[in-house]
Amino acid sequence: MQPGDISAIVFDTFGTMVDWRGSLIVELAQFGKARGIDIDWVAFADAWRAGYQPAMEPIRKGERGFTKLDVLHREILDRLIAQFNITGLSEAELAHMNKAWHRLNPWPDVVPGLTRLKKRYIIGPLSNGNTALLLNMAKRAGMPWDTVLGSDTFRAYKPTKEAYLGLCALLDLPPDRVMLGAAHNNDLAAAQACGLRTGFIKRPREFGLRPNPGATPTGNWDIVADDVEDLAAQLGL
Amino acid sequence: MQPGDISAIVFDTFGTMVDWRGSLIVELAQFGKARGIDIDWVAFADAWRAGYQPAMEPIRKGERGFTKLDVLHREILDRLIAQFNITGLSEAELAHMNKAWHRLNPWPDVVPGLTRLKKRYIIGPLSNGNTALLLNMAKRAGMPWDTVLGSDTFRAYKPTKEAYLGLCALLDLPPDRVMLGAAHNNDLAAAQACGLRTGFIKRPREFGLRPNPGATPTGNWDIVADDVEDLAAQLGL
Repeated sequence: MQPGDISAIVFDTFGTMVDWRGSLIVELAQFGKARGIDIDWVAFADAWRAGYQPAMEPIRKGERGFTKLDVLHREILDRLIAQFNITGLSEAELAHMNKAWHRLNPWPDVVPGLTRLKKRYIIGPLSNGNTALLLNMAKRAGMPWDTVLGSDTFRAYKPTKEAYLGLCALLDLPPDRVMLGAAHNNDLAAAQACGLRTGFIKRPREFGLRPNPGATPTGNWDIVADDVEDLAAQLGL
Repeated sequence: MQPGDISAIVFDTFGTMVDWRGSLIVELAQFGKARGIDIDWVAFADAWRAGYQPAMEPIRKGERGFTKLDVLHREILDRLIAQFNITGLSEAELAHMNKAWHRLNPWPDVVPGLTRLKKRYIIGPLSNGNTALLLNMAKRAGMPWDTVLGSDTFRAYKPTKEAYLGLCALLDLPPDRVMLGAAHNNDLAAAQACGLRTGFIKRPREFGLRPNPGATPTGNWDIVADDVEDLAAQLGL
């Protein structure tokens, strides 16, 4: 693949662009401390994320109508609040807590790497996050997207083909003019099956100090990069 | 209205952000000259735009399924090619011609004005243009949108309420936290009826040297501005 073969690079977000786990743990621990709620917030954060794939599964299968990620996150949160025996939070506090997913911090290479890629390519997320979540996250972190088209615009969740092809249709680009940048082999495999180009981005610390075997590329990806700056460098930017 | 009452400012595009008429006339005239097609390109540009509202009308009324603006522009173009007795153009030439709408130039205050507004507000288009059209236009012109959500994301055409409310839903903002900036009173009236805030932007030269009575505000708009830089100034930016 030559750098001129693609017009757009779109990125997985949770894990690839932002350190969801580190950001969530810090915010939840501060939230708990300010309110005297002394539970294992690391376990809480991991349980919240563990609810993510199962929550989308009925929608992928067509058993439930499209429901945006903010709503799914809130459903999981409400269950965890009960499960961890947390009481006394107001609706405003729960709503604020749920929007912790709008306030995730990018890995340090993301803003400089995207800034370089933006010189030649259309850049945006290709995420299961809804538009407002991704937009608020980008605005807060200074991620210089050209557009933010959340999963609520193409109304499908990765790794269904409707998600990848839906975004390409909005961009009016054939799939082979679009590259997905992602830290997850299964995401890239689904994109590749739809005809997109693939850039693997290593994120060995997605799960903090726990080993992350997923940070090793297992497919025949067009580019394997150490981070977003390295992706830009390999594309000559 | 106070500047802090709103979180996002979204803008009409054709006429408000970009000089569609001047841009189109220049591009079409060059296109014609290079091919020895000697017709009245000013009349051609005006006829192309005159087909715009009628083309959307069946979709607004629900008599035709949502069809993106690139397709409607092409349908009008094909009729005009016959009407002006133009022959011998290839499919690639017609496709390129149709994408003249992706290559419109902004008024000179747009990029600096948006750059100022972006410091505090989420900014994006609220246009009948499709996502790819608006995105290619912005990328070429350096318009610093936070996101580009074309009419093919909310699948409705202004001035139906589904367009204004559809964009607010994607932004996850109540309509009164969103301002529409537009040069057209009817667009602002429809937005105001949906609860959005309104900013009138004067564009006396939308139709070149022909008088533009529409450049006078006729409604009770929250802000009346000489241009986008003046809008930023009136919001304290």
